[in-house]
Amino acid sequence: MVSEEESSIKAMAAKDIFHPIVRSALEKEGWTITHDPLYLKVDEDKLYVDLGAQNHLLGVERYGQKIAVEIKSFLGLSLISDFHEAMGQAWNYKVVLEEIEPNRVLYLAVPEDVYEDFFTRRLAKISVGRMQLNLLVFNPIREEIIIWT
Amino acid sequence: MVSEEESSIKAMAAKDIFHPIVRSALEKEGWTITHDPLYLKVDEDKLYVDLGAQNHLLGVERYGQKIAVEIKSFLGLSLISDFHEAMGQAWNYKVVLEEIEPNRVLYLAVPEDVYEDFFTRRLAKISVGRMQLNLLVFNPIREEIIIWT
Repeated sequence: MVSEEESSIKAMAAKDIFHPIVRSALEKEGWTITHDPLYLKVDEDKLYVDLGAQNHLLGVERYGQKIAVEIKSFLGLSLISDFHEAMGQAWNYKVVLEEIEPNRVLYLAVPEDVYEDFFTRRLAKISVGRMQLNLLVFNPIREEIIIWT
Repeated sequence: MVSEEESSIKAMAAKDIFHPIVRSALEKEGWTITHDPLYLKVDEDKLYVDLGAQNHLLGVERYGQKIAVEIKSFLGLSLISDFHEAMGQAWNYKVVLEEIEPNRVLYLAVPEDVYEDFFTRRLAKISVGRMQLNLLVFNPIREEIIIWT
């Protein structure tokens, strides 16, 4: 048994591991990291104030195309909880992006094993599809993006 | 300073406190609690397996009208994190409900103080509005529902 505190430390460490991996994978494909983190602000609400410590949102650009990349490790205690959290963050990011920078498209970065085990399942497919959320699937070992959806 | 463990215990206890309060507030208005918890199942995915311990979703009925009520305490370490989680859960519940029971409308139950401090702000209003998510605002002391939106 792993304590909640140990799991939490493990999850935090894993988030820090995936962050440079996704950066590197994007750079290999010719993207430039323009914002790390990408701050999202709506009116009086400064999302990044609360999110900075927990989440990684990158601003990335290539040939004039701008995207935002939300990095999720999915290494929490419950995959469903991580999924709810990822979808809620994605929803709120999309809502804010549409207001302040409608041309920047959001991608959720997901490690390959989580994609295969979870995102190919019916619930995830319907949920992601309905939200019109784009996925960027990466292989953490090879530091490569393997699927853009 | 409150440790993360203490906060977690406090939050869990608060969830247990709000659960009977929302039930009682609904019953005062003539609703019948038909499912506690309401299990949501899609294909091979059994949401309730993972959610049972963390979340309260009620199935409620009055004069033939069926609703599902998601109870959130918003007593976590970060209001924004709680909000992301609530919106992600709501999204996934809505997606599943539309598949299996399209006539049952989802409501997110929110305590009055959180509604006034947070849900009247611009980010929350846009996010909730875009999702077409209904709110049920309750006063935890009087055990009464004060706003249906």
